[in-house]
This record gives sequence, structure tokens and C-alpha cells, in this order.
Amino acid sequence: MKLALEEAKKALETGDVPIGCVITYRGEVIAKDHNRVEEFSDPTAHAEILAISTAGRKIGVKNLRECEIYVTLEPCPMCAGAIALAGFKKLYFGAFNLKHGAVANRFFIAEEYKIPWEHIPCKECENLLKEFFKGVRKGEF
Amino acid sequence: MKLALEEAKKALETGDVPIGCVITYRGEVIAKDHNRVEEFSDPTAHAEILAISTAGRKIGVKNLRECEIYVTLEPCPMCAGAIALAGFKKLYFGAFNLKHGAVANRFFIAEEYKIPWEHIPCKECENLLKEFFKGVRKGEF
Repeated sequence: MKLALEEAKKALETGDVPIGCVITYRGEVIAKDHNRVEEFSDPTAHAEILAISTAGRKIGVKNLRECEIYVTLEPCPMCAGAIALAGFKKLYFGAFNLKHGAVANRFFIAEEYKIPWEHIPCKECENLLKEFFKGVRKGEF
Repeated sequence: MKLALEEAKKALETGDVPIGCVITYRGEVIAKDHNRVEEFSDPTAHAEILAISTAGRKIGVKNLRECEIYVTLEPCPMCAGAIALAGFKKLYFGAFNLKHGAVANRFFIAEEYKIPWEHIPCKECENLLKEFFKGVRKGEF
């Protein structure tokens, strides 16, 4: 999660929402990325989609059953859907996404697709987002 | 939808599930793609994700409010989530996705995010999928 948080901070350089993601395969990091929606003008360029795409291409399989994914924020419907399709061994996330969370809040996609998940409370992950949205959305994310 | 169906057929060349997608902007086609999960070993490489990514980068905005998206099959949670994020003007799809549909079946993501949608019945879209899955899943998709 610490590495995912480091990734999240990189998003700030391009004015992107500070969310980071790390994927491990048999204990080793095989992909990491951050939100790049603004950088690429691409609404699909969330940290998870980019990292999953890299991981799949890297290990050469569409099914990431032996991989674990760490995200600083609870995934949105698109990313939770991608995690379900990839069939991860486990999903970990650092902050709850009250508005768009698709694991434990607005939708329950991980459970629907039997993807085990765990919330690893990460105050720094949360504060980074609150700080980012302070001006525009009163710190809500 | 006819163009999306043509795209869908291209997926067969790489053993991919025959699903195609077309995106229009002010009446003109700006992106089209097909499922390339097997081709790329990438679980996120659904027709919609690839086409949305292309469209965003092409017109240089993350918000595709003035675009319409045509898919041969009702989108899955990942793709419906991407469509919601992009904020499409309207979504059209040709066949219902009874198992994983996230618009009118298993999840209702389009409505949750106020994306107007319409089912344009396309028997050929459906038959293409039934034929593809005939051997493995008794034609179910």
C-alpha cells in the first residue's frame, strides 16, 4: 500500500486525481500505475485499468488469478469490473470511496464475482484525496 | 450497429469473443474497435474500453458528452462503468447480456449514472455470439 501511495502522488504532477495501484504476482511487483485521465485525455485511464493491462500483457495471460491488487482508493464500477474480469486472488484498498465505490459502497461487484477483498485503512491515502478536492468539492471525493 | 457488427467479426481472427463497438461524435465515427482480450492477453481489452480510450485521446477531452456509443452486446460492469465515467450522450446495444449485463440485467450502472440507453435488437449480433460459444458453453454468452 505504501508503494501504491507513492504512485498516487505521481498523479499530482499532471493534475490527475491522486490514486495509485500496484499489482503483485507471487509476491513480486509486476505492475504499478496511477490515474492518468487528464494526462491522456482518456476517461478509462484509471490506475487500476492501466496496471491490469500492463500485468496481463506482461505475464501473458488474461486471467490474473495468482495476482493481488493494491489500490489507494476503493475501485469505481469500471475498475471493480476489470478486477472481477481479471479474477484477482485478492483486492486491497486504502480508503473508502463513498460516492462511487463498487466494492463496499455504491455497488458490490467484488462480492458478486467472488473476488476476496480487504480494506487496509490508509489515512494518508484519504488525506491526499481530501487535499486534492479541497478547493473544488469541499474535500469530498 | 452494422459497423459495430463488422468490427465484432474481426475479433474472430484472433479467437476473441466477437463483440464490436463504434463511437460517433456529432454524427461522425471517431473510434471503433473489437474485443482483443486474447490478442493482447489483457483482461481490460474489451471493445468499449479500447474505443473509449481512442475517442478520448482523439478529441482531447476526458468527457465524451457529445458522443454516442454503439456496442453489439450489452456492456459488462467494467464497460458500463467506463461509459458512465465518459458521460456519453447515449448508449445503444444490439444483444442483451443476460449473465454479465450491467445496463439492463445484472447491474444497472447506466441508469445509476443517468446515461440514456436503448436496445436496438440485433439478431445477427446475438447469433454471432451463440455460434462462438456453441462448443464451450452450449451457445450461452
